Amino acid sequence: MTPLTRDALARLDQDDALSLFRELFELEDGLIYLNGNSLGVLPKAAKARVAEVVEREWGQGLIRSWNTHDWIALPERVGNKLATIIGADAGEVVVADSTSVNLFKLAAAAVRMRPGRRKIVSEPGNFPTDLYILQGLEGFLGGEVRLETAPRERLEEIIDEDTALVVLTHVHYKSGKMFDMAALTARAHEVGALMLWDLSHSAGAVPVALNAVQADFAVGCGYKYLNGGPGAPGFLFVAKRHQAEFRQPLSGWFGHDNPFAMSDIYEPATGIKRGLCGTTGILATSALEVGVDIMASADMAAIRAKSRQLGDIFIALMEQYCAGYGFTLVSPREAGLRGSQVSLAHEQGFAIMQALIARNIIGDFRAPDILRFGFTPLYTRYVDLWDMVQALAEIMAKGEWDRPEFKRVTAVT
Amino acid sequence: MTPLTRDALARLDQDDALSLFRELFELEDGLIYLNGNSLGVLPKAAKARVAEVVEREWGQGLIRSWNTHDWIALPERVGNKLATIIGADAGEVVVADSTSVNLFKLAAAAVRMRPGRRKIVSEPGNFPTDLYILQGLEGFLGGEVRLETAPRERLEEIIDEDTALVVLTHVHYKSGKMFDMAALTARAHEVGALMLWDLSHSAGAVPVALNAVQADFAVGCGYKYLNGGPGAPGFLFVAKRHQAEFRQPLSGWFGHDNPFAMSDIYEPATGIKRGLCGTTGILATSALEVGVDIMASADMAAIRAKSRQLGDIFIALMEQYCAGYGFTLVSPREAGLRGSQVSLAHEQGFAIMQALIARNIIGDFRAPDILRFGFTPLYTRYVDLWDMVQALAEIMAKGEWDRPEFKRVTAVT
Repeated sequence: MTPLTRDALARLDQDDALSLFRELFELEDGLIYLNGNSLGVLPKAAKARVAEVVEREWGQGLIRSWNTHDWIALPERVGNKLATIIGADAGEVVVADSTSVNLFKLAAAAVRMRPGRRKIVSEPGNFPTDLYILQGLEGFLGGEVRLETAPRERLEEIIDEDTALVVLTHVHYKSGKMFDMAALTARAHEVGALMLWDLSHSAGAVPVALNAVQADFAVGCGYKYLNGGPGAPGFLFVAKRHQAEFRQPLSGWFGHDNPFAMSDIYEPATGIKRGLCGTTGILATSALEVGVDIMASADMAAIRAKSRQLGDIFIALMEQYCAGYGFTLVSPREAGLRGSQVSLAHEQGFAIMQALIARNIIGDFRAPDILRFGFTPLYTRYVDLWDMVQALAEIMAKGEWDRPEFKRVTAVT
Repeated sequence: MTPLTRDALARLDQDDALSLFRELFELEDGLIYLNGNSLGVLPKAAKARVAEVVEREWGQGLIRSWNTHDWIALPERVGNKLATIIGADAGEVVVADSTSVNLFKLAAAAVRMRPGRRKIVSEPGNFPTDLYILQGLEGFLGGEVRLETAPRERLEEIIDEDTALVVLTHVHYKSGKMFDMAALTARAHEVGALMLWDLSHSAGAVPVALNAVQADFAVGCGYKYLNGGPGAPGFLFVAKRHQAEFRQPLSGWFGHDNPFAMSDIYEPATGIKRGLCGTTGILATSALEVGVDIMASADMAAIRAKSRQLGDIFIALMEQYCAGYGFTLVSPREAGLRGSQVSLAHEQGFAIMQALIARNIIGDFRAPDILRFGFTPLYTRYVDLWDMVQALAEIMAKGEWDRPEFKRVTAVT
């Protein structure tokens, strides 16, 4: 392969059909942001939208806005837009609460839909909150169900007739490895288990076809590739065929069939609304809607093609310019097996990432030794990869990471 | 009693030590807003604060803001401020999720702290989401615990040795009736049960002394008297003495002792942080902080004194000007037994409320026949009561409510 040049990459940017999307986001000059897999950037339109919700809808409309601005329908409205991004149908997705809370709702409902089965299956090293929520459910039910995990190469073995539910994250937060959703879902169904996908690192990043693979349930995050803002609401998906039977224990009034009848008895709403719990957070959900609107207007096939190419070029540049500095590729080399990130291991990973951040190049670090670089095709440029790798090569060549201020441990989500 | 006059009320406004607070809120000229018990008004400072969080903290700070703007500590920081309003100590309150989700966490934890006891006690007509969440818990546990309700005059009878938990709303959303927190809490403790108070209609409205009455748990709402914005996060309180034993099943990563160690095993944080679940909603929690700051800076004794007087004067004005129009007082006449609202029943309540709203006087309606008027001493003026009652008298005298457009049923939370 001919060595890559910055000019060649600049030409790719010029020819990039997605390049106009970058204008829709706030991106400071000189910043290279490779952390959209953790916290997405601010859509310019979100500033005006949030101000409008605060000043006009809340400030002036006050209580009337539940009707006049249809705050009531907001979780379903944004959910329906999101559905188009993840291969679901209208009426199958709502935006609400956090990913963690939504996972509890769905996992709790699922174990009740498979009475007598005693296992929930996941993998070690799944995103922590997924394992923690499943442990919370397990502990709360006092041993009625237990969480069993196995590394992905042995997962299919432990999915058996005693399995009520399989919970997996489609794209792994740390390695970027992507599961074959169709195969795993089929394996779960083969033994009569239900399948729940966490799409936190997939929604808006890679094509997802929930209904094509016959997924039963899904949850996901609004603040990563969907650019919904820090701590944006999560979402949940329940396949239409399960909705009549689906009952979740967080049965708050917004999931009631007629909340404003103020009756004493919970009657679940028809359809996906029964996945709601408390009063909708209007500010945060409105901000998320802006990000979802942008994502829904982009061509997912183009996003995926660019994402694969960004990853491939990044790996090639690392081999050209950073070979011999002790980096190991953690993510799959084969683009088809990766999500929209590339992770590297390095024993000085923490300090190296701090040195990059000091140069205004932002990725993130995951203990014990992983540097993560997320590629967000709507705003990552090909030349960003060049500039980033050149900076990294300099940092390594000069030992620039080896400073006391780069070695303290700080928390970054 | 000498008949009240508008001048006399205007003099009360002039002498009102709280009158300067009104300037802190957005209130359109001519609007009389008596619905702060449902959705509080917009603090002027919240506009700038939300814009700052969106533009500077999210837009510019991006992922770095978890550290640089200490987003990590936000739920505890706002919780500690809120603690001062409800008679709790620092380290006993966090802001997170919705009231409904928080109630589930605490009720689920509580039943596990009283193993073998099979009852949760509440009252019929409690705020619907409270009953719904408890029903959700009951259904999920398959009869292991059951919800038993009795009208408040017979409540003490059904609180017995089989009771794990008593869940009551301090100020009733519909009638405004206020429980004697000390007496009910003592009754629950007498039989070894735990006591959980819903403070949704109390926090920022009436003095609450959680620790003085030895309450075990509490939840509440951020969008009413705390002026946190539509669907603002709720809060939860766990008394210090229970925190070591307290384990809640929504054990998401933000409740972990060290979330960013990304370990596979949930270890609850020390203290109140274990009440957290998913990633903090930064926009909404930041907006709520503004409302809490204002409330924490006000003198609760002055708020309560004005609130009582507003209610008393409203009742007196109704008797002076609206006797004979078929209104019945639903709230206690005795101010000491009322929260910060007065409710009236009228068979044409819905249409009458619509007629008031058409005159820019906003209270709300609760099925089947209740008109609610919330008094928010930080921005309700005495003359507002005069103007509102005069308007109501005219509406009744002229039959102004009797129009087709005032009779459709719309949903208002």
